[in-house]
Amino acid sequence: MSDPLESSAAATGTPPSARTKVRRHPERAAYDRAAVVAIVDAALLCHVAFVLDGVPHCIPTACWREGDHLYIHSVRASRLVAALTGGTACVTVSLVDGLVLARSALRHSMNYRSVVLYGTFEDVTDPAAKAASMATFLDHVVPGRAALVRPPDAKELAGTALLRVSLAEASAKVRSGPPKDLLGDLAWPVWAGVVPLALESGAPLPEPGCAALPLPPVPARYA
Amino acid sequence: MSDPLESSAAATGTPPSARTKVRRHPERAAYDRAAVVAIVDAALLCHVAFVLDGVPHCIPTACWREGDHLYIHSVRASRLVAALTGGTACVTVSLVDGLVLARSALRHSMNYRSVVLYGTFEDVTDPAAKAASMATFLDHVVPGRAALVRPPDAKELAGTALLRVSLAEASAKVRSGPPKDLLGDLAWPVWAGVVPLALESGAPLPEPGCAALPLPPVPARYA
Ligand SMILES: Cc1cc2nc3c(=O)[nH]c(=O)nc-3n(C[C@H](O)[C@H](O)[C@H](O)COP(=O)(O)OP(=O)(O)OC[C@H]3O[C@@H](n4cnc5c(N)ncnc54)[C@H](O)[C@@H]3O)c2cc1C
Ligand SMILES: Cc1cc2nc3c(=O)[nH]c(=O)nc-3n(C[C@H](O)[C@H](O)[C@H](O)COP(=O)(O)OP(=O)(O)OC[C@H]3O[C@@H](n4cnc5c(N)ncnc54)[C@H](O)[C@@H]3O)c2cc1C
Ligand code: HEM
Ligand code: HEM
Repeated sequence: MSDPLESSAAATGTPPSARTKVRRHPERAAYDRAAVVAIVDAALLCHVAFVLDGVPHCIPTACWREGDHLYIHSVRASRLVAALTGGTACVTVSLVDGLVLARSALRHSMNYRSVVLYGTFEDVTDPAAKAASMATFLDHVVPGRAALVRPPDAKELAGTALLRVSLAEASAKVRSGPPKDLLGDLAWPVWAGVVPLALESGAPLPEPGCAALPLPPVPARYA
Repeated sequence: MSDPLESSAAATGTPPSARTKVRRHPERAAYDRAAVVAIVDAALLCHVAFVLDGVPHCIPTACWREGDHLYIHSVRASRLVAALTGGTACVTVSLVDGLVLARSALRHSMNYRSVVLYGTFEDVTDPAAKAASMATFLDHVVPGRAALVRPPDAKELAGTALLRVSLAEASAKVRSGPPKDLLGDLAWPVWAGVVPLALESGAPLPEPGCAALPLPPVPARYA
């Protein structure tokens, strides 16, 4: 009786470095640019890990992509900015797509898309480049928003740090589809299947004076 | 004209250690157990950061809480298990609650609840304790599910690693509420307010033969 967990599918592409090679479930890996970009573009959030005095730190921050870089922003005078421009970071993007409910406990899982990348962040300091990237960021979150809001002035831009890291050393890992129960468990009398999950937007809560203005075209879901 | 970003609110509780003291927006911090537990209990996912040969790694995994510990599981023979029991980890739980859309670009933000903790994972090896914790995990994801599924056998349990880390050295950080535009920006003619976001469940996709079985009582949202 063959075990459906033992997949014969192969990864897409080849790892860009030894440390990006997916070892657990290698058949779920993809290393091509298109796979990495699709996951980063769907995300609002990443987790950035860095090392200070030998201790790991893992900080959530908003992110977006331009070309071959993942961007984040923070306040200029912060630990995050100092740490990320001074050493290797690991950046992880994780999208949860569903609960995978199997007949057997062990075969429960989640459907997901994730990217893990390694690199050193670069500090983007040119004011025009910063203004353009912050506009791209705003439009990534809400399409068309950059043109409508009060743009950052020179002082606000100067206080903002814009950091970017290359997507060159990245891996993607994706689980999709139904649970994979053992043949001997298929008759177990419990509901099995997938329950989709997604980050969905709800009814907007306007500020006083905004109820009559056009609503922002926020996507129904970020996924 | 006072700047509403300069809040005079204070953190709840005191940091359990120097490295857990929130420095950016300290008024958003909470260090009491109740605040930390509420955020961990609402989460399906955490990001675990660890250091190997000086390089940070950030790996997403499912998580749950029992008492004063956060638990994760993996396959026994994995890098993750070896790394986490051999050094300090940083574990981060991040829940995205909404987009904060301000009149000015700079005042855009997100509403969120997050926990960052430091500690060394402990390997829970007692088979009875492991079986009980995996049942708690199943019930965290879908209430009542542990009693319905085919339970793990001894070999399956032995191949599973159950790791836990204390919640003692944790901080919580929460942003909630509307955008905080400068008074001079309040008349800018663009919609401002909050667009709620939440991880919502969709219509279940049953496996063949499961359509007539009782649906799992998956929460409408994990939040
Ligand atoms: C939403 C979600 C929930 C998950 N829940 C669990 C869980 O509960 N238990 C569990 O064991 N695993 C879980 N995983 C998978 C987990 O992220 C790791 O892939 C797995 O634990 C193996 O980790 P490792 O460090 O031992 O991997 P290895 O395969 O040894 O890692 C080697 C390299 O592969 C790459 N890589 C590893 N994981 C990923 C990834 N997720 N995405 C992209 N590249 C990657 C990195 O470059 C890494 O350095 C989950 C993943 C996601 C996205
Ligand atoms: C969904 C989400 C999106 C975010 N987006 C951004 C963004 O785009 N830009 C940005 O600058 N910041 C963002 N933040 C805040 C970010 O997580 C950090 O709090 C902030 O960047 C300061 O980081 P630091 O390392 O400089 O903090 P410091 O305040 O110097 O960190 C000191 C200690 O405080 C604790 N701590 C720090 N951050 C958190 C946290 N989030 N939760 C719990 N404890 C914490 C940790 O113990 C840390 O070691 C976001 C947070 C969340 C949850
Ligand atoms: C008794 C219950 C469970 C046991 C014994 C168990 C065991 C395991 C083991 C051994 C692995 C590692 C697989 C590998 O990398 O080769 C694993 C991975 C995983 N488990 Fe579980 N698990 C249980 C329940 C759950 C539940 C309830 C969920 C979530 C709904 C879950 C989600 C996952 C995910 C997402 C992975 C990662 C798979 C991947 O690498 O792509 N598990 N589990
Ligand atoms: C031109 C546009 C923007 C500029 C110049 C800007 C600038 C900044 C700066 C300087 C900080 C650090 C604040 C501090 O820690 O004191 C910050 C934090 C943050 N920004 Fe932005 N930002 C912009 C747009 C956005 C957008 C579009 C979003 C997301 C919708 C966003 C989300 C956040 C979040 C979540 C934080 C963290 C706040 C906290 O620490 O609690 N920003 N931003």
